[in-house]
Amino acid sequence: MPDGDDSADTDEVLVERREGVLLLTLNRPDRLNAWTATMQQRYLELLERADSDRKVRAIVLTGAGRGFCAGADIAGLAEVAPEEAASGGHALSLPIRIRKPVISAINGPVAGVGLVAALFTDIRFAARDAKFTTAFSKRGLVAEYGLAWLLPKLVGVGRALDLLLSARTLPGTEAHELGLVDRVLPEEEVLDAALTYARALATECSPASMADIKQQVYTGLDTGLETATADAGERMINAFRRPDVTEGARSHQQRRPPDFPPLEQ
Amino acid sequence: MPDGDDSADTDEVLVERREGVLLLTLNRPDRLNAWTATMQQRYLELLERADSDRKVRAIVLTGAGRGFCAGADIAGLAEVAPEEAASGGHALSLPIRIRKPVISAINGPVAGVGLVAALFTDIRFAARDAKFTTAFSKRGLVAEYGLAWLLPKLVGVGRALDLLLSARTLPGTEAHELGLVDRVLPEEEVLDAALTYARALATECSPASMADIKQQVYTGLDTGLETATADAGERMINAFRRPDVTEGARSHQQRRPPDFPPLEQ
Amino acid sequence: MPDGDDSADTDEVLVERREGVLLLTLNRPDRLNAWTATMQQRYLELLERADSDRKVRAIVLTGAGRGFCAGADIAGLAEVAPEEAASGGHALSLPIRIRKPVISAINGPVAGVGLVAALFTDIRFAARDAKFTTAFSKRGLVAEYGLAWLLPKLVGVGRALDLLLSARTLPGTEAHELGLVDRVLPEEEVLDAALTYARALATECSPASMADIKQQVYTGLDTGLETATADAGERMINAFRRPDVTEGARSHQQRRPPDFPPLEQ
Repeated sequence: MPDGDDSADTDEVLVERREGVLLLTLNRPDRLNAWTATMQQRYLELLERADSDRKVRAIVLTGAGRGFCAGADIAGLAEVAPEEAASGGHALSLPIRIRKPVISAINGPVAGVGLVAALFTDIRFAARDAKFTTAFSKRGLVAEYGLAWLLPKLVGVGRALDLLLSARTLPGTEAHELGLVDRVLPEEEVLDAALTYARALATECSPASMADIKQQVYTGLDTGLETATADAGERMINAFRRPDVTEGARSHQQRRPPDFPPLEQ
Repeated sequence: MPDGDDSADTDEVLVERREGVLLLTLNRPDRLNAWTATMQQRYLELLERADSDRKVRAIVLTGAGRGFCAGADIAGLAEVAPEEAASGGHALSLPIRIRKPVISAINGPVAGVGLVAALFTDIRFAARDAKFTTAFSKRGLVAEYGLAWLLPKLVGVGRALDLLLSARTLPGTEAHELGLVDRVLPEEEVLDAALTYARALATECSPASMADIKQQVYTGLDTGLETATADAGERMINAFRRPDVTEGARSHQQRRPPDFPPLEQ
Repeated sequence: MPDGDDSADTDEVLVERREGVLLLTLNRPDRLNAWTATMQQRYLELLERADSDRKVRAIVLTGAGRGFCAGADIAGLAEVAPEEAASGGHALSLPIRIRKPVISAINGPVAGVGLVAALFTDIRFAARDAKFTTAFSKRGLVAEYGLAWLLPKLVGVGRALDLLLSARTLPGTEAHELGLVDRVLPEEEVLDAALTYARALATECSPASMADIKQQVYTGLDTGLETATADAGERMINAFRRPDVTEGARSHQQRRPPDFPPLEQ
């Protein structure tokens, strides 16, 4: 049983590894997992630790209980100076800078900073009835933490403005139609589907390839084709020096699962 | 009754304010509201005036009669030097530079420069049967006024090329599937739906938040994540100095509509 | 019957002109048209030749037999130094740099470099049951040849990561839903539909307009709105000096097909 501050802090994000997949669970279920400074710090620590853990090949993020994350904890918000909150902004996009894929399993309501956290993971599974809202314009706030930069790249600029200006609430099914999430399922199947997908990444896909591809996609959002093509060429040459290429071809020809090496720390 | 040139000019765009929502109506119904230099000048004046009018919180653009805007007036085109027309190009994207949201209610056919005008508003409602076409390639023209820049950001680059190269005509329903418009409705409901949406923005959303969000989204199309995140942080700090944040939280807790202050001139 | 190296090389991409439309067919049907260095060189030569051939106004790319292109030929891959393969990367995006529209008719399976080739054409028609996969992460490879740059611009960044990280296989119908292809049809209708579309471009659309529009769209992906608008203004002025504008207006008024001049070499 947890006792003392350390354990309480630790409990705000639960962590469990199932073979190559690390499951992170936002864990304030009585508050729909409302975001706190403590939760954020724990989340970032776990992501960084996962990135250098050879046993972890993919990460899944979900919420405990009936929600994913209902936004910033309003009680907590009052305690934090805006300067401090703003300075943490770059942190929420950490998933796109680590080398391993991060998948969100959006099991229930997601709003505000919770939506930012989900959108800055690489891929999203969601419950059909999960309620989505950007929330900010109805609270007198701005599009926080790079959300205004990311959202048009996910769903197009018109849809991004619709969601951000109106802060309207939409269900998972519509979020899927708009491209905000990549799969929708009945609520009770969302986490299992995300874990199954993550397991496939962990067992079928080269960790080195996935690390390269993440960097290529995200840096490619800000560079031109020539730069991206030259970068791809260098990475391709490096890839041919790794054992993964041989194992990829051999396992394919032998019709067996590949046995790719883990990422080095 | 209008008399003299001034009134005639003024009539090319009708204007009506319904509480916080300003309705602009392109008004050459006998010509499917074909675009003229006079119409453009009037449209731009009204947008700029609306931006500094404390009573206006959202703007809706529609067309009189059976169409939205059938493109440039061909008779008028012959009278205007291409240099003059080209110099007006930056003007058509004015809606994205004002601080207040602009919603198009596309009630009927939209083509060429009319489509450019509609796409440079923030959000689009359209009639299911409204006919859309870029028109330019069939007239020997180019993608005018920044359309080639904007369209891939709305619908993706493949769909943008399909629409621009072929200049094919598509109905509102397909325009919706492609992401070209954000809602489709029966023709007789389009304007009401757009006005209802605009009314919601005017009564539920902070004008200061919406002004920030518009700038964030559009500038974010040309900047990297780090710049966007730093910018969001500064705006967030400023937001906490405005009364809107307190009113947003308070009205939410009290389950009542918010009472956000207007934008200063 | 072909004899000698030259003929064999030539046969790897078949070429046939039907009035203004040039049909290129990847032609190693016994290998699902797996990509070879020879095929690539022939493909690029044909594209460049088509671009300067006054009789060609649109280009269609398809595959012989049951597939489009199953990816790089693994036998061939072993023979090519990675440095050499990487240096060819810029070549695969050649279709976006030529002045004439290129349409893919994806008649069957498409994977790896075959998918890159299809995505770097301007518009895509596909068979409903055609199987799509990026393939790279399962082979220990990276996102080759600018694909990581292009894919988010076609389908959004979340969907791009899903397709690239997992290398999962999806049917043409889902590729269409995601925006990866622009039309889906029964397999036996794909090529005809693409040819009909290309014929419409060749007969109804100004070659000069299409050349401008292609450049505008692709360069606009890397520039800001102001640059794009200024560029559009210059191109608009130039367009008014071409006979196409007059012919476009006149044929429209006379309700007859336009007779646009070909592009100069």
